[in-house]
Amino acid sequence: MYSFKNDYSEGAHPKILNVLIQSNLEQTEGYGEDIYSIKAIELLKQKIGCSNIDIHFLSGGTQTNLTAISAFLRPHEAAIAANTGHILVHETGAIEATGHKVISVEVSYGKLKASDIKAALDAHTDEHMVKPKLVYISNPTEIGSIYKKAELEQISNFCRENNLILFIDGARLGSALCSSENDLQLSDIARLADAFYIGGTKNGALLGEALVICKDSLKEDFRFHLKQKGALLAKGKILGIQFLELFKDDLYFQLAGHANKMAELLSTNISALGYKFMINSSTNQIFPIFPNQIIKKLETKYSFHVWSKIDADNSSIRLVTSWATKQEAVEAFIEDLKNI
Amino acid sequence: MYSFKNDYSEGAHPKILNVLIQSNLEQTEGYGEDIYSIKAIELLKQKIGCSNIDIHFLSGGTQTNLTAISAFLRPHEAAIAANTGHILVHETGAIEATGHKVISVEVSYGKLKASDIKAALDAHTDEHMVKPKLVYISNPTEIGSIYKKAELEQISNFCRENNLILFIDGARLGSALCSSENDLQLSDIARLADAFYIGGTKNGALLGEALVICKDSLKEDFRFHLKQKGALLAKGKILGIQFLELFKDDLYFQLAGHANKMAELLSTNISALGYKFMINSSTNQIFPIFPNQIIKKLETKYSFHVWSKIDADNSSIRLVTSWATKQEAVEAFIEDLKNI
Amino acid sequence: MYSFKNDYSEGAHPKILNVLIQSNLEQTEGYGEDIYSIKAIELLKQKIGCSNIDIHFLSGGTQTNLTAISAFLRPHEAAIAANTGHILVHETGAIEATGHKVISVEVSYGKLKASDIKAALDAHTDEHMVKPKLVYISNPTEIGSIYKKAELEQISNFCRENNLILFIDGARLGSALCSSENDLQLSDIARLADAFYIGGTKNGALLGEALVICKDSLKEDFRFHLKQKGALLAKGKILGIQFLELFKDDLYFQLAGHANKMAELLSTNISALGYKFMINSSTNQIFPIFPNQIIKKLETKYSFHVWSKIDADNSSIRLVTSWATKQEAVEAFIEDLKNI
Amino acid sequence: MYSFKNDYSEGAHPKILNVLIQSNLEQTEGYGEDIYSIKAIELLKQKIGCSNIDIHFLSGGTQTNLTAISAFLRPHEAAIAANTGHILVHETGAIEATGHKVISVEVSYGKLKASDIKAALDAHTDEHMVKPKLVYISNPTEIGSIYKKAELEQISNFCRENNLILFIDGARLGSALCSSENDLQLSDIARLADAFYIGGTKNGALLGEALVICKDSLKEDFRFHLKQKGALLAKGKILGIQFLELFKDDLYFQLAGHANKMAELLSTNISALGYKFMINSSTNQIFPIFPNQIIKKLETKYSFHVWSKIDADNSSIRLVTSWATKQEAVEAFIEDLKNI
Repeated sequence: MYSFKNDYSEGAHPKILNVLIQSNLEQTEGYGEDIYSIKAIELLKQKIGCSNIDIHFLSGGTQTNLTAISAFLRPHEAAIAANTGHILVHETGAIEATGHKVISVEVSYGKLKASDIKAALDAHTDEHMVKPKLVYISNPTEIGSIYKKAELEQISNFCRENNLILFIDGARLGSALCSSENDLQLSDIARLADAFYIGGTKNGALLGEALVICKDSLKEDFRFHLKQKGALLAKGKILGIQFLELFKDDLYFQLAGHANKMAELLSTNISALGYKFMINSSTNQIFPIFPNQIIKKLETKYSFHVWSKIDADNSSIRLVTSWATKQEAVEAFIEDLKNI
Repeated sequence: MYSFKNDYSEGAHPKILNVLIQSNLEQTEGYGEDIYSIKAIELLKQKIGCSNIDIHFLSGGTQTNLTAISAFLRPHEAAIAANTGHILVHETGAIEATGHKVISVEVSYGKLKASDIKAALDAHTDEHMVKPKLVYISNPTEIGSIYKKAELEQISNFCRENNLILFIDGARLGSALCSSENDLQLSDIARLADAFYIGGTKNGALLGEALVICKDSLKEDFRFHLKQKGALLAKGKILGIQFLELFKDDLYFQLAGHANKMAELLSTNISALGYKFMINSSTNQIFPIFPNQIIKKLETKYSFHVWSKIDADNSSIRLVTSWATKQEAVEAFIEDLKNI
Repeated sequence: MYSFKNDYSEGAHPKILNVLIQSNLEQTEGYGEDIYSIKAIELLKQKIGCSNIDIHFLSGGTQTNLTAISAFLRPHEAAIAANTGHILVHETGAIEATGHKVISVEVSYGKLKASDIKAALDAHTDEHMVKPKLVYISNPTEIGSIYKKAELEQISNFCRENNLILFIDGARLGSALCSSENDLQLSDIARLADAFYIGGTKNGALLGEALVICKDSLKEDFRFHLKQKGALLAKGKILGIQFLELFKDDLYFQLAGHANKMAELLSTNISALGYKFMINSSTNQIFPIFPNQIIKKLETKYSFHVWSKIDADNSSIRLVTSWATKQEAVEAFIEDLKNI
Repeated sequence: MYSFKNDYSEGAHPKILNVLIQSNLEQTEGYGEDIYSIKAIELLKQKIGCSNIDIHFLSGGTQTNLTAISAFLRPHEAAIAANTGHILVHETGAIEATGHKVISVEVSYGKLKASDIKAALDAHTDEHMVKPKLVYISNPTEIGSIYKKAELEQISNFCRENNLILFIDGARLGSALCSSENDLQLSDIARLADAFYIGGTKNGALLGEALVICKDSLKEDFRFHLKQKGALLAKGKILGIQFLELFKDDLYFQLAGHANKMAELLSTNISALGYKFMINSSTNQIFPIFPNQIIKKLETKYSFHVWSKIDADNSSIRLVTSWATKQEAVEAFIEDLKNI
């Protein structure tokens, strides 16, 4: 049974394990103030091309989202998210548990547009309603689509004109940046967003997300929030050292590139066999539509999520590739699909 | 510069790194439902000698405290803690951030007694005050003392008679259980507490705490709380596999035993030189009292926390040993102390 | 300028002011433990036909909703509401501020059906999502429609089968119960709901809502929640005495009946003039559709909310009547409408 | 049985009931935007001698404290209060329920000094602890003492030098301002505090507190917080109109003056009989110490709180007077005391 279920089935890239081993017995400061975390922050600032940013390492995506968003908002302020947004549906009300409403906006293909945000603002007219204050987008989205530079610029401009905070969930940011359709760079994202994070867990790290805070007013006292939300690891070094390794020789982009390539190999071949897709994706998640009977047969050899019912006879499934996905596994899947 | 500052200066025990490497490329389920976590839970149940318990793995102590306590309490209910309690002073209001007051009880030597808890109950008389519902103790305490079985039984009995939840913070539980003065076993703790955790981070793991929920009514839906508080790691395997290794051949106790032995070596020799201690500790944290001038000299070669001012000329310092503390470092410290 | 803007434009019914005056200088217990509140609770129990209920008086609807719902739910549990639900859109995220998500369900005419609730349950499959636990409905709804007994029974049955709490917002409950289409009695509501409230503010009281808790497990310690949420008035007597007066001689129903009658007079005549309505309402809120030009003219003499755009030329408006609405004002409105 | 138990045993001053009656059937705007509330705000600004302040009317003290403090603080920030502070002990954890720790400072006589606040600041050194940000004091304190102008200036100066918000709970502010020992005026308080409230409930209103926000940065969006916390009354007029009446002809100060005079009459005579007091109070709460046997006899004719045990044979009791306390009742009490 080979798994295309997600991009966190395996552990870390061997290079990462290696640096963990090499530095293992060195005594370092606790709580992220160690030399590795400091170096990783410096390196990330270079890679992002901006020194006026604050960077913090956290353990996972939900933790990053809830810590950042609750730190950024006052009690009556709310986040706006696409109806497919991770914070809206798949984090067990983590944002609400910190006191904030998440306003759902119905969109197609997982992407918010400036006009969607405007509509949400217009619907909130007075103090009997929450005040929309933060726009949450994911790049890539939860269904694999990505934001083009022009789209992100429109959103960013709208947010700045309307005094909204733009926060980008980058749990799979590597995959977006390495997509064949992408025209964004890290420096663009830092320029356009007020805060975003660079996901490590789903791109080769054991665990770890690098939160980048660009807007000055959001930076103050952030380490208090990390501690309060249980996000300040005693052995914080293990987060910093992983990001140091991921970005030292651009391993991060190589890994994401591999994942995308494997996804593309899958989708090209699936397409060639005449199957359609729920959504066009150039990242490491693809959503082909198969007859239910074929899905049942595939399930005997591969694990994946059945995503949504298309009609009585057909469903979409989600296939996820990762830095660790083997080309042979992809080829075997295609072969099996042909032979069904 | 050698550090006696804490027990999380180094990484993980090599055996732990080893199992992480060995299992690295296996595909496993996410979010703690992997085979290693399942095995680790089974093993811990054996070691605890109780099968009717639920076990969850979390990343750190603050995260464990806030997730458990907020899951266990209704909005008007409060925790009772010693004035030195970690949740009261060193977690940036993490419990309050989930909505609950922590009632401070002034105690000596970091330990609550049943009579202290009774006094706190008696002081809360009606609905204009919070309702004390959970008793939080740490074993060992934040200042190195431990609870004897008879003391814990008294507290446990009082809690059960008064419908209070007894929660034990075991961030350094290994050190308590391996103390020369200890008469408690894991099975005692599971019998006497309603929930407790077995700290991994401070005893040889990269990160990880094993939360044990003993009382049936506290178990329901706990994974929802893990997810909501950002505590459910995508690669949850890395927590389970560490606990599996720590308890497979009782490595956990060997490591804690070593840390205690190093602390004892320090305190015996410091005592022999005529110095006194702020508190009598048989665990891996000791608090010798030195003239300030000696502290200054020690600081040139060793890092540690200056703990409290004793009088104009003397202060206590905190020396912490760990599974990784080298006997040569301890001996060097003693030698340097003699020569000052 | 006559206002049909809402049902809280005027003060209290004169009989209520009268009892406030008569009892003004009597010394009574504070915080709702006075003799008037106690008597009011006894009287309400008789009127509801059930003694095994707890009743508490609060100041307003939002306060009642947030205090009750946060008391009833554990942190990971959520409320389900119609997309028009007051807690969802018009309480500034009050429920979320207590930590709980409100799940929005798209419905027609403001009313949830058991099948809607089932769909919401089915969409929440595991611990990565909140756990739907409480169903919030308003009777009448925010757009004037009411629940028939058969509908409420279906919802109640579904909730009990699925271990969901049924909570009914009765801010305008009097108007629902006095509707010509109503077949529910207070005793039915107490039998079918787990908790509900009887609104006083919008039916003749200066302020005040009577929260009725029917389900035993929701009753414990409720006064702690009242105090914690700032809902326990020092001079709690002023709430109890109003409900005593409202229910002593069924004044509550007379007042609601008057409001409904005035609304019916409006709608019958508006209908007779050939206008349509956004929704069919038999309660004290009606939503006629007028050409925008007519609305502009009406606005010169009457105040009301323009509710929604129907098409380029027409909009619906909301007309609200109350216990204090004068028949002459209604007749004048109709006359003016005829003459436009 | 005559009650000296508190200052909320009776209803409102007759003049207040009178204006409620007179304005009862006027149609006014809801939610505090009515003409009476607007006038009351203007009048209060005149009386305070400052136009650059925002004023909001709320229902009670706990509601005011929790709404203001949660609006003013970021999640990691805490309030500092005397160990007798109302928010610390008698509001069922209302502040903690909004996510914030209240730091307790042991003081004598209920009053904080700048040096106490400094000690609390000094004890909070880094991001592992909450950040003290708001200083909460009550004037008069919960045990009847008051702040002199010089004391308040010292506190205010310290707060401004240390970027702390100074918030004054004025549930009984009238009594403080009318104390024979007082040298503060409303204008001083507005100059020295960042926010404070003028209590109506305990000084002749049916209910109502006037929150005054002086510091500009605390003013923004405050009505959102009012609504979210359930503090925005639909018939907000009933709060504004009461404050309008209370301050129109300085009724507020006459009522507080009467309460103080009655308390002074009690204490002078009790003192003349040779009894001592737990604390020296010039406000409407006094704490005489009596032999327990005398207390038992007094309890047959008067109701009051037994406050604290002084020794085996003696206890302090709390006697509270109000705007409605009758001089005959005071004289009867003294007479009874003499005759015991």
